[in-house]
Amino acid sequence: MTSNPKTRTESDTMGTQEVQADRYWGAQTERSIHNFPIGRDTFVMGRPIVRALGILKKGAAQANADLGELPQDVADLIVRAAAEVISGKLDSHFPLVVFQTGSGTQSNMNANEVISNRAIELAGGEMGSKKPVHPNDHVNRGQSSNDTFPTAMHIAVVLELNERLYSSVGKLRDTLHAKSEEFSGIVKVGRTHLQDATPITLGQEIGGWVAQLDYALGEVKHAETGLYDLAIGGTAVGTGLNAHPKFGDLAAQKYAEETGFPFKSAENKFAALSAHDALVQVSAAIRTLSGALMKMANDVRWLASGPRNGIGEIIIPENEPGSSIMPGKVNPTQSEALTMVATRVFGNDATVAFAGSQGNFQLNVFKPVMVHAVLESIRLISDASLAFNDNCAAGIEPNREKIQHNLDINLMQVTALNKHIGYDKAAAIAKKAHKEGSSLKDAALSLGYVTEEEFGKWVVPLEMTRN
Amino acid sequence: MTSNPKTRTESDTMGTQEVQADRYWGAQTERSIHNFPIGRDTFVMGRPIVRALGILKKGAAQANADLGELPQDVADLIVRAAAEVISGKLDSHFPLVVFQTGSGTQSNMNANEVISNRAIELAGGEMGSKKPVHPNDHVNRGQSSNDTFPTAMHIAVVLELNERLYSSVGKLRDTLHAKSEEFSGIVKVGRTHLQDATPITLGQEIGGWVAQLDYALGEVKHAETGLYDLAIGGTAVGTGLNAHPKFGDLAAQKYAEETGFPFKSAENKFAALSAHDALVQVSAAIRTLSGALMKMANDVRWLASGPRNGIGEIIIPENEPGSSIMPGKVNPTQSEALTMVATRVFGNDATVAFAGSQGNFQLNVFKPVMVHAVLESIRLISDASLAFNDNCAAGIEPNREKIQHNLDINLMQVTALNKHIGYDKAAAIAKKAHKEGSSLKDAALSLGYVTEEEFGKWVVPLEMTRN
Amino acid sequence: MTSNPKTRTESDTMGTQEVQADRYWGAQTERSIHNFPIGRDTFVMGRPIVRALGILKKGAAQANADLGELPQDVADLIVRAAAEVISGKLDSHFPLVVFQTGSGTQSNMNANEVISNRAIELAGGEMGSKKPVHPNDHVNRGQSSNDTFPTAMHIAVVLELNERLYSSVGKLRDTLHAKSEEFSGIVKVGRTHLQDATPITLGQEIGGWVAQLDYALGEVKHAETGLYDLAIGGTAVGTGLNAHPKFGDLAAQKYAEETGFPFKSAENKFAALSAHDALVQVSAAIRTLSGALMKMANDVRWLASGPRNGIGEIIIPENEPGSSIMPGKVNPTQSEALTMVATRVFGNDATVAFAGSQGNFQLNVFKPVMVHAVLESIRLISDASLAFNDNCAAGIEPNREKIQHNLDINLMQVTALNKHIGYDKAAAIAKKAHKEGSSLKDAALSLGYVTEEEFGKWVVPLEMTRN
Amino acid sequence: MTSNPKTRTESDTMGTQEVQADRYWGAQTERSIHNFPIGRDTFVMGRPIVRALGILKKGAAQANADLGELPQDVADLIVRAAAEVISGKLDSHFPLVVFQTGSGTQSNMNANEVISNRAIELAGGEMGSKKPVHPNDHVNRGQSSNDTFPTAMHIAVVLELNERLYSSVGKLRDTLHAKSEEFSGIVKVGRTHLQDATPITLGQEIGGWVAQLDYALGEVKHAETGLYDLAIGGTAVGTGLNAHPKFGDLAAQKYAEETGFPFKSAENKFAALSAHDALVQVSAAIRTLSGALMKMANDVRWLASGPRNGIGEIIIPENEPGSSIMPGKVNPTQSEALTMVATRVFGNDATVAFAGSQGNFQLNVFKPVMVHAVLESIRLISDASLAFNDNCAAGIEPNREKIQHNLDINLMQVTALNKHIGYDKAAAIAKKAHKEGSSLKDAALSLGYVTEEEFGKWVVPLEMTRN
Repeated sequence: MTSNPKTRTESDTMGTQEVQADRYWGAQTERSIHNFPIGRDTFVMGRPIVRALGILKKGAAQANADLGELPQDVADLIVRAAAEVISGKLDSHFPLVVFQTGSGTQSNMNANEVISNRAIELAGGEMGSKKPVHPNDHVNRGQSSNDTFPTAMHIAVVLELNERLYSSVGKLRDTLHAKSEEFSGIVKVGRTHLQDATPITLGQEIGGWVAQLDYALGEVKHAETGLYDLAIGGTAVGTGLNAHPKFGDLAAQKYAEETGFPFKSAENKFAALSAHDALVQVSAAIRTLSGALMKMANDVRWLASGPRNGIGEIIIPENEPGSSIMPGKVNPTQSEALTMVATRVFGNDATVAFAGSQGNFQLNVFKPVMVHAVLESIRLISDASLAFNDNCAAGIEPNREKIQHNLDINLMQVTALNKHIGYDKAAAIAKKAHKEGSSLKDAALSLGYVTEEEFGKWVVPLEMTRN
Repeated sequence: MTSNPKTRTESDTMGTQEVQADRYWGAQTERSIHNFPIGRDTFVMGRPIVRALGILKKGAAQANADLGELPQDVADLIVRAAAEVISGKLDSHFPLVVFQTGSGTQSNMNANEVISNRAIELAGGEMGSKKPVHPNDHVNRGQSSNDTFPTAMHIAVVLELNERLYSSVGKLRDTLHAKSEEFSGIVKVGRTHLQDATPITLGQEIGGWVAQLDYALGEVKHAETGLYDLAIGGTAVGTGLNAHPKFGDLAAQKYAEETGFPFKSAENKFAALSAHDALVQVSAAIRTLSGALMKMANDVRWLASGPRNGIGEIIIPENEPGSSIMPGKVNPTQSEALTMVATRVFGNDATVAFAGSQGNFQLNVFKPVMVHAVLESIRLISDASLAFNDNCAAGIEPNREKIQHNLDINLMQVTALNKHIGYDKAAAIAKKAHKEGSSLKDAALSLGYVTEEEFGKWVVPLEMTRN
Repeated sequence: MTSNPKTRTESDTMGTQEVQADRYWGAQTERSIHNFPIGRDTFVMGRPIVRALGILKKGAAQANADLGELPQDVADLIVRAAAEVISGKLDSHFPLVVFQTGSGTQSNMNANEVISNRAIELAGGEMGSKKPVHPNDHVNRGQSSNDTFPTAMHIAVVLELNERLYSSVGKLRDTLHAKSEEFSGIVKVGRTHLQDATPITLGQEIGGWVAQLDYALGEVKHAETGLYDLAIGGTAVGTGLNAHPKFGDLAAQKYAEETGFPFKSAENKFAALSAHDALVQVSAAIRTLSGALMKMANDVRWLASGPRNGIGEIIIPENEPGSSIMPGKVNPTQSEALTMVATRVFGNDATVAFAGSQGNFQLNVFKPVMVHAVLESIRLISDASLAFNDNCAAGIEPNREKIQHNLDINLMQVTALNKHIGYDKAAAIAKKAHKEGSSLKDAALSLGYVTEEEFGKWVVPLEMTRN
Repeated sequence: MTSNPKTRTESDTMGTQEVQADRYWGAQTERSIHNFPIGRDTFVMGRPIVRALGILKKGAAQANADLGELPQDVADLIVRAAAEVISGKLDSHFPLVVFQTGSGTQSNMNANEVISNRAIELAGGEMGSKKPVHPNDHVNRGQSSNDTFPTAMHIAVVLELNERLYSSVGKLRDTLHAKSEEFSGIVKVGRTHLQDATPITLGQEIGGWVAQLDYALGEVKHAETGLYDLAIGGTAVGTGLNAHPKFGDLAAQKYAEETGFPFKSAENKFAALSAHDALVQVSAAIRTLSGALMKMANDVRWLASGPRNGIGEIIIPENEPGSSIMPGKVNPTQSEALTMVATRVFGNDATVAFAGSQGNFQLNVFKPVMVHAVLESIRLISDASLAFNDNCAAGIEPNREKIQHNLDINLMQVTALNKHIGYDKAAAIAKKAHKEGSSLKDAALSLGYVTEEEFGKWVVPLEMTRN
């Protein structure tokens, strides 16, 4: 913060504050930098929130202008500056961290100040003068941190879900679905209780993962709809005091137009400020998704375990040296990264739900930590799903020899004989095979309960899969 | 287990086992009692699961009979015995605890054994003889623990949600909604950051709670729809081996007819056995609901705090002695019970999500602990909501004198003067009042910025609420 | 509650209340039954809390008598009645559930009322008359719910840890330790990343579990020491108002004498009433223990997986039919029960930590839910450890044939050749063996890099274990 | 990664890999960058881990040299390069993220590669040539990722606890302790159940917070001792294969000398690789600490609530504009930041405990996510405690007027009259005062139960605090 000695004087209701001359932010942002030096390295509000604040301020200015609450020229200046915030061009002017005022006040003011000063600059004015565009009176017109920040939270999460999570996890889902179809003819041993069971196809096994991802993605998408209800228009306590009565609806309409998502002003603004249950639900659905990914990733690494003393029924790509001495040892590193992400997402969700329960009266003051955790989960799940897809799932191949061998020695196919020779004889065959370590067929033939032809006709693993 | 010395001999594939003569259960149930003496006092599978198992077995027998898989007379016997299980008459014959085989195998067998023996008794046969109704071949026909237990889980939870949770929480919601309307004309101080803020009505404040409950209940109801997909028809690994191909669909149809809910056989049985994501989602939605209840209960106790040194804006019923010496001290005990329940529900949800992530291959073996935790949460939320409703919410009354006093001394109404006399003069009034401890009106008049008439016309708290 | 129509009239400061004539409790307990019908089936305060309340009241009476605060004869009556509470004889007179006033007030009053009435009965008085032993003035002398209930919480948990958890988990630990020593000579494949690795002994593998249990048990025991600090003597807000200045210390001394544990009155009573961090720490240490048990139980079920298509290196007892058709399929049901318990303990711990963070001013009002969750975790871990010990761990046997086979085909022993023939040649051997599916020895000999004698001398798995 | 077109060719067992010429890292690090593009913005392994890896490699080289396993000149080069890693000079050469191989393999190799290349550079050699200092044979001598990474985890956390957390939280604790002593004479209303209670001093109230912090810090320090046991010497599976038998002990001794903490090689290396229970315990103790901070921060904001319609008994510094229109509205922003941190720490702890339970056989592959979460919690708690201390706690002042007023109107002091005039008359006084809204004294005098002199002598709040 001190690399450039040149500063200018900014002010707020507490007085003046020196700010680096090349920064657009003002006094309140600067104060926040000093008052909240918490996790500075990694907890700066990131792109999604900054972009959402830009969208928020742009639409608010447009709505206010339409309603006669702002002069058109002032609104135009705000719109131009806000467009730059949206674009990412001004990201370095948003230095604040997550752990600040619990309503996100300083981040809202950061947006107000940056847009104000950039608009002033565009108008040829003097930064810090608040003329012709005042951060509070104009940029924050008809707004309060208490309704803008939760609005930005919703916009940010909706965009990240749609631009990042659905496509990333969807790509993995599609890869697995293709694998499921490709391997629909490969019959293998099923496993329950980690014990050998009746046959399934590899396609069915992978199809189970796909079904889980489909369900979980559907639930995330359902939860997303709760985010379309925006706090905007509620101002400080939910009553909308100081905002034009039509402001909330119109601003929300602007956000819908800007983003393509059906945002609207929430019916009950009191709940919208004092609780973030829709965000808690999104977090929970992402947790469910991460649980599904964990199950899949665990199955993958177990199925790929070996090379000789594990299950070894699938082969996964070797992306890096697993061991300097042991050829064939392919560590399931993508599974490891993905399951680590899952544990992180579970933790983030615990944070979100805890924070979400702690509102008082007309405000919940855990807003920044909630949205940050949800955005982090989205980012991690998305990145890890893509990495897993590209570096593991896409390259999964059946170890046909091992699959067939395992199936051949499996005893559970005896079940197919029940209806032909009765339970008792079938059990006797299985017992003999188990005791002697022989194949079912050998045991069956040696007991004389079936002929080789019958065995071949009756014990058909593929048919047992009802594929 | 030893109070009655008379026993009969039951058997399973491991051999014989003595069972109390007056118990309907068989060898496998008896073994489980001995093998899993874990939390016996409080973790016996309860009514909802037993009832669901009854529904499951009844419908399965009907479906099998329709499909020609069971003789009609055997099916009829099963249906009669299962009806008794449904009714609760045989609850004492279901002694098993939650912590058993992770697929719920023993509870499934418990149902099979009890129904078999009771059906035998109805038929005049000899208990333990497995004739004419065999626990495996007949009662469990076309089924496996792996698909029946998760089916029972879904049925149990759907019924408990609909027969218990929605009505209980709904009753509280309705009470609060009525209070919200009743108190819509009571203007009071709003609070953000725990600090005084602009006015709202008590109706608006309570209405925020109602909106949270409406949203959360809606989310639970949405999540419930995921439970309509049943594992039935998947048998041991999801392929449906040994079940009639139409069995899953038809059995689900029977459950729908029996219960009135649109149950159907899940499209993907592999996911239905190896994951319980729909249950995780239900748990999460109940967690969101409990978070909403926690926020409401916390607001209630803070608003009722005092009698003299708290906020004291509402009066709650005095249900028990708060203190033996202090009249007027009304401890918010219903809030305390309800918020304790909320913390328990959060913990239960953590259990469910953790367990739900731990499936392997074709089975998740954390089934009983998952359904138990969800059912416990439903029960606790329901009971506590009713208790809170009856013993607290229904009796909430405004402390009109305190509310008016607090409003009168509140400084935030100064906001209403901004548009008339400008921000600077309004701020000067507020500062003077704050410094001198005077009322806004006194400060305004003494500064000469407004007349008494103007103040009365412009500073109207009710209008500030935009009620 | 209605089996006996005969009632007597009890009273408290709110008025009179009818109580079943054959119950010792009084008006406040009766009110609580009606006001808190929450989870009645399974959430009644259990033996450990009731016993601890008995110990608490007995020692308090003795201390008060010693200090001249109670007549000796009154104290003696209280001691006699409290002794019956301790013994369990009066458990049915403690009907209250966990979800009540958050300070445990009603349970404290339940103890006061039961002891009062039983003491009155012993003295030949009239129950409900409060003479000669008054529930408040005598039994609760120098006490408040706010300091007694947390004192009872600590006593209850210390006793349950020492009488239940340490011995149960310790027994399992000892069994595993014995197995570790018994199998110290069995060399087997090690596994990292689920991939084959260099050899270890089965004793070493099991020894890792023992080391985890030893550490976790040590941490629970350390955390237990925090419970020796008792709130007693703090009365309502921590100042000790209305208690004899020496009461806290002396009462704690009585508890130490009664139980044999070094209880003492906490140095800071304000923290002792408003926070339960020592209990949170105990809960966390039990969570760590359950994590260790989960890892062990997971290893056990994986090592026992099979019978043919899993790892199958150990054999675990078959306690119940795993499958009606498949001999040799032994489901790892004890592992499943134990890991389900672990997920429950994780959830309980989440409840405890959440509740523990929610204190306000001079009181935390989540006391009952916290102690209940900790006691439940202790009970479940203890029961499940014993069941696992008796029905699984004690019967674990190595599958020597499978272990040897797996070791023979393992390629990782090639590491031992590095220092004799160099990395490049060793890698070439491993690669050839992997590619051809041959043994290391065959590959090594066919490449001519070592003689059979050299191979036998250099590749000695046991030595690689450094046992 | 592509800003500099100049690259050099690095190699590993999988082949060659181009690396930016100005980076010290090698092929495996480069592969990891491409294979794990997960959370790159914020999840790069940070300073504490890099530093710990430097300490690890330096001590390992020294130990190997002492044991004759490395030539002294090679060891000296490693020591020089590792010293630069320790210093932070090479931080930009550690680009890898947390979500990688679960054993931290790539970060271990990152350290090996950077130290190797920097050592080669110091020796005037050619980077990438692996001569004279080979990343595996020399820098990683006698080590495996499986034992080095957990060793680095322990070193990193111990250093961060001692250099960051204890001092930061300790500073806040000392400030509060000083406030507690400073305000020991200020008598105020106590509060239980959020209801008025008997008096305490402000010093006692704050002292309760100090006692919580003292306990929690003590528990963190206790848990820290578990981290002194290092995995070093266990190599790949815990047996120590390929390491000199004395290497583990000697390396640990070097770390102890370097850092001043009593590190030693863990007695059981199998547990040290396959579980991280000591880290789980540290995380849990930090969670307890964060719970204590949350309670304190909540008390602070409630005590400072107002300005007129809250409790308002303390005044906290005004650090930023709370509201643009409302003088005297001081939002408790530091409390908000600190409690948000607490919810984040709870989430991180959930991640750590979950991940810690997921080990299999000889390895837990959730190492990086575990240590990252613990380090993040340490950082956040430390930063937030300092910010809270400097910007809030240090400036807390009593609002003596409000405190006295609240105390004057409090009715609970009536308790002091019990022993003089009896419970009934005392209660009558309190009831009258409550009903009429009068002071206790007025009610007492008007009832004629005490004289003014008696009241003044008997009702002395300070004495009731037993200060």
